[in-house]
Amino acid sequence: MNTWLNTVRWNDKGLVPAIAQDYQSGKILMVAWMNKEALQLSAETGHAVYWSRSRKKLWHKGEESGHQQLIKDIRLDCDEDVILLTVEQKGGIACHTGREGCFYRHLDDEQWVATEPVIKDPKTIYKS
Amino acid sequence: MNTWLNTVRWNDKGLVPAIAQDYQSGKILMVAWMNKEALQLSAETGHAVYWSRSRKKLWHKGEESGHQQLIKDIRLDCDEDVILLTVEQKGGIACHTGREGCFYRHLDDEQWVATEPVIKDPKTIYKS
Repeated sequence: MNTWLNTVRWNDKGLVPAIAQDYQSGKILMVAWMNKEALQLSAETGHAVYWSRSRKKLWHKGEESGHQQLIKDIRLDCDEDVILLTVEQKGGIACHTGREGCFYRHLDDEQWVATEPVIKDPKTIYKS
Repeated sequence: MNTWLNTVRWNDKGLVPAIAQDYQSGKILMVAWMNKEALQLSAETGHAVYWSRSRKKLWHKGEESGHQQLIKDIRLDCDEDVILLTVEQKGGIACHTGREGCFYRHLDDEQWVATEPVIKDPKTIYKS
């Protein structure tokens, strides 16, 4: 029963990192964490569900923002401790800063420099 | 001094996950871990250096296999706890199984199914 869920090597907190990659552009949108229930729900519903470490509860991606992630494919790495989701990003925004993806800073001369635009003001994405 | 290294939110073991993505295809090759020294060496040398959790030492990617990763770009996510390397993968093989990348299994009807070919027999990659 659910052998595929038990193949995953959950860490000592019962979590694994999960990468969300855009299914068309190949861009890496974000990395979040999943517990067993989050992965099972993701597979069952076809929408990305993560575990919020800060809020300590399941996080249905897009539940507040509307920026859901429709899952095209779920992959597992050779060590069985990282999940890769290929997704269609609703609204074209994955990051809570209002950017397309979370990896918007790159290292330039020993400084992290933001290189990607804010598409939408987070204040208009999230209700207070 | 080295403020950029201190911007990273190292976990309670002093590590963060690091994703290696092919700079041309956008394919996600692997995920490994870095400590502060590994990230500093990666930035300084332009070659990916990770921290091996199993061997508990720095792991200069390709030191045995020759499959080094030349770094094109280093990125940090919004939470400052995941690193993204854009790399040129020497030999076209990142995975210790002899495949191009580590995410070679995908979920199909509640089973993890390997979908990518072994390019080179690991026995011929690694000296015993």
